[in-house]
Amino acid sequence: MIQPRPIEYGESVLLWDEDKKKSFLFILMQGGELGTHKGKIFHDDIAGKMEGSLIQSSTGSGYRVFRPMVYDRIMKVQRKTQIVYPKDAGWLILSLNLGPGMKIIEMGTGSGAFTILLAYIVGAEGKVYTFDRREDFLKNAMENVKKAGLSDRVVHGVLNAGEPFPVKDVDAVFLDLPEPWLAIPASWEALLPGRPLASITPTAEQLKKTVQSLKENGFAIMDVVELLERRILVRKREGVRPFEKMVGFTGYLISARKLQ
Amino acid sequence: MIQPRPIEYGESVLLWDEDKKKSFLFILMQGGELGTHKGKIFHDDIAGKMEGSLIQSSTGSGYRVFRPMVYDRIMKVQRKTQIVYPKDAGWLILSLNLGPGMKIIEMGTGSGAFTILLAYIVGAEGKVYTFDRREDFLKNAMENVKKAGLSDRVVHGVLNAGEPFPVKDVDAVFLDLPEPWLAIPASWEALLPGRPLASITPTAEQLKKTVQSLKENGFAIMDVVELLERRILVRKREGVRPFEKMVGFTGYLISARKLQ
Amino acid sequence: MIQPRPIEYGESVLLWDEDKKKSFLFILMQGGELGTHKGKIFHDDIAGKMEGSLIQSSTGSGYRVFRPMVYDRIMKVQRKTQIVYPKDAGWLILSLNLGPGMKIIEMGTGSGAFTILLAYIVGAEGKVYTFDRREDFLKNAMENVKKAGLSDRVVHGVLNAGEPFPVKDVDAVFLDLPEPWLAIPASWEALLPGRPLASITPTAEQLKKTVQSLKENGFAIMDVVELLERRILVRKREGVRPFEKMVGFTGYLISARKLQ
Amino acid sequence: MIQPRPIEYGESVLLWDEDKKKSFLFILMQGGELGTHKGKIFHDDIAGKMEGSLIQSSTGSGYRVFRPMVYDRIMKVQRKTQIVYPKDAGWLILSLNLGPGMKIIEMGTGSGAFTILLAYIVGAEGKVYTFDRREDFLKNAMENVKKAGLSDRVVHGVLNAGEPFPVKDVDAVFLDLPEPWLAIPASWEALLPGRPLASITPTAEQLKKTVQSLKENGFAIMDVVELLERRILVRKREGVRPFEKMVGFTGYLISARKLQ
Repeated sequence: MIQPRPIEYGESVLLWDEDKKKSFLFILMQGGELGTHKGKIFHDDIAGKMEGSLIQSSTGSGYRVFRPMVYDRIMKVQRKTQIVYPKDAGWLILSLNLGPGMKIIEMGTGSGAFTILLAYIVGAEGKVYTFDRREDFLKNAMENVKKAGLSDRVVHGVLNAGEPFPVKDVDAVFLDLPEPWLAIPASWEALLPGRPLASITPTAEQLKKTVQSLKENGFAIMDVVELLERRILVRKREGVRPFEKMVGFTGYLISARKLQ
Repeated sequence: MIQPRPIEYGESVLLWDEDKKKSFLFILMQGGELGTHKGKIFHDDIAGKMEGSLIQSSTGSGYRVFRPMVYDRIMKVQRKTQIVYPKDAGWLILSLNLGPGMKIIEMGTGSGAFTILLAYIVGAEGKVYTFDRREDFLKNAMENVKKAGLSDRVVHGVLNAGEPFPVKDVDAVFLDLPEPWLAIPASWEALLPGRPLASITPTAEQLKKTVQSLKENGFAIMDVVELLERRILVRKREGVRPFEKMVGFTGYLISARKLQ
Repeated sequence: MIQPRPIEYGESVLLWDEDKKKSFLFILMQGGELGTHKGKIFHDDIAGKMEGSLIQSSTGSGYRVFRPMVYDRIMKVQRKTQIVYPKDAGWLILSLNLGPGMKIIEMGTGSGAFTILLAYIVGAEGKVYTFDRREDFLKNAMENVKKAGLSDRVVHGVLNAGEPFPVKDVDAVFLDLPEPWLAIPASWEALLPGRPLASITPTAEQLKKTVQSLKENGFAIMDVVELLERRILVRKREGVRPFEKMVGFTGYLISARKLQ
Repeated sequence: MIQPRPIEYGESVLLWDEDKKKSFLFILMQGGELGTHKGKIFHDDIAGKMEGSLIQSSTGSGYRVFRPMVYDRIMKVQRKTQIVYPKDAGWLILSLNLGPGMKIIEMGTGSGAFTILLAYIVGAEGKVYTFDRREDFLKNAMENVKKAGLSDRVVHGVLNAGEPFPVKDVDAVFLDLPEPWLAIPASWEALLPGRPLASITPTAEQLKKTVQSLKENGFAIMDVVELLERRILVRKREGVRPFEKMVGFTGYLISARKLQ
């Protein structure tokens, strides 16, 4: 049984400001300091505390301390590219049938945000094979994966869309590319029979071309959707209503399965 | 390395009709028959086939055969209650920080659709403790879990909202109840420090009461959202556009973390 | 000053069933009868009543009687084609800058639902010039316009998309065609300088082609949108939430202005 | 027949920058100058031009000149309060059955944006009776109405929600108040039998209270909705997709009719 365990030096820590809905992700170090807009936070005040504890800044402002969840890791990656947002990521996890022990190919590593989620869900016995044509993206992404403590589950490589994948018989393929159709024949080759492929793509034209290519290259289309997330404001006195601003669009999501 | 493996008698099978976007989930049995609106399917025609293969009905209609994904399990449960839909389920998985090896409490088993997903994601080393006040719901849900082959990861029990949970130090709590607030103090007791609670609730009034109760009982609210899923029609000739009908609402989703 | 005036024989009447949210639109006739799923309604029971009065059916069910609003006329037209729905119609009215005394061209009369709204808003001193390539559509539409009592404000004619309009110096043009781009040069010719053109179109491809053609033919694009209407369920006991089903898509709306 | 007429001194003018989708609304004056972020615009360069003409700034940037539409008037009012946005305004126009010659009460004048639209649609023979409890709001709103050239159709007065309206037998009532329910009995008294009332309100709680009060005070609820407007990006090369940001919520819309 897991026992509640205080936060120690060397661990990743999420510092959370309820008022501002702002948070900081960093590694706790002896003697360390974090400058915030509400005063300094001394790392030594955090060490030994339980998650959820209240931490005071030098100016007396209150923060809560947590260990980061995978959600926090995703949102806090060093970004070089657009990331797959949590609302879409959750849908993709289900479409990819992702679970412990699985082997998955990700083509288009980008900033590695979704790579982290994949690695988290496949667990210690699974494996994520992630590819990108740009070495600098891969380098940054693998830094992000490392910070999340998931390096041992991720194999990466430089690859152009259209080149065969150097791994076979995988349980799922995820494509996050400007031209997903280029990687569809190679995806078919790498997948186990009947297993899922998913992709995200930004425009109607790319969507159409991807769907068409999937149909022509031995895949059945299971679903094509977009998700709108509305954040809701809940206030005791003023009442309940959606926020005035929202993210209007992040991409079209495609789910398919390999045919024989 | 997993080798492609033909479908055998005794396995669960998903039969899928692309035209109708209709599917059947059943256990493959020697000599078995399935009556569809497009003629009979003989189980013996499926045995020995690879996933993704084309199967002909007695009237010559074509079906594709697959092993069910967890998504299919969710959608095909024997329903006694409203289920948590995949679009919401994916978001909840992330909000609950769910991954291999975790222990989670689910209060409000219902039809067991979400229980199946939880059990799938926590893997063989994790555990789902699921509770419902109605024994008949639990019985039906555990049947569904059993069909999905996940019984060994699920512990269930009859419990009323408000009673203490018979398990402690869990990694996450999910509440799917008419009155989630009744179970919030017990959830706090059962959770490890800083760990997440999530809930789904249908009306603005229930949402407000739940959020208020979380704040008053030692939780920080991380997010309150609703998700709209729009299915997109992609046709070669006619072009791309959203479907004319859509599911307009399934519930408000709440994500919180335990404070000390 | 308008005095409250009882409903008379010969008037159009809307009979409205609150429970079912169902309604009937018909002309009140001496001795007339209307069969409903809740018994017969005798026209003579309605004559002489004020709007909003309760009318009993032969089986004792209650209905409310109203004079139809323009909204009811739109929803109750004899349909031969898809109609422009009220949510989109309202947006279009504003985009077309429509008001009393205006002259507007409508190309694509269809069932005449939007023609009725246009005629209603331009008033007795305005004029709607409506064209369709199909004489049968025009015939049906003009029947609908006549039932709404607005025939004197509507001029109609058979015309193919691309042919010049037989009217000039109009205040606005509305295009509801499968290929709106065919009518854009003729629209430019017919419009007063700087005045608005609006259109509705169902797919991303048609939208793109229409926008491109507008830009190439002397129009400035003001706005391109789609509207989602969510109906909200408000119940005293159960509380407030969106309906479970909704209309997901009715078309893309385009607003432009003529350049010199 | 209206002849194309060049723009003259003394007219209101909309100057529109296509690149920035930014616009300026002002009165054209001999010798006048307008400072923009792209150089000066000399009024004398506009006088005598047709709508839709290209105007050069002092630095050579291009603007288009138009006469303002009612939409532009709404968006450019001097704001002291939240305005009713065009997407909602269009829906309300239909729900209120608004057309030429009508008499309507508006309770909650605010900035007068919706007052302008009402006055525009009812025409020279209609009348808008608008009330607000705050004299300063009324003063500002009537300035906005005057700029739109619609003062002769608008009667205004200071009134608290709950006080009887000083006008009777109106065709429609619109309530834009923090507590719409306070004005519902007075609205019933002022309306012609069977005629519509509409309202906009921001929270679920206010919505519920308003709907409840309408039911208890002699109204039938016709519709309760919210509208989401998604702006669509149409680009020749990159393709079609919704904008990344959108307005998530502006209010719940209620439509009702007076019962006898």
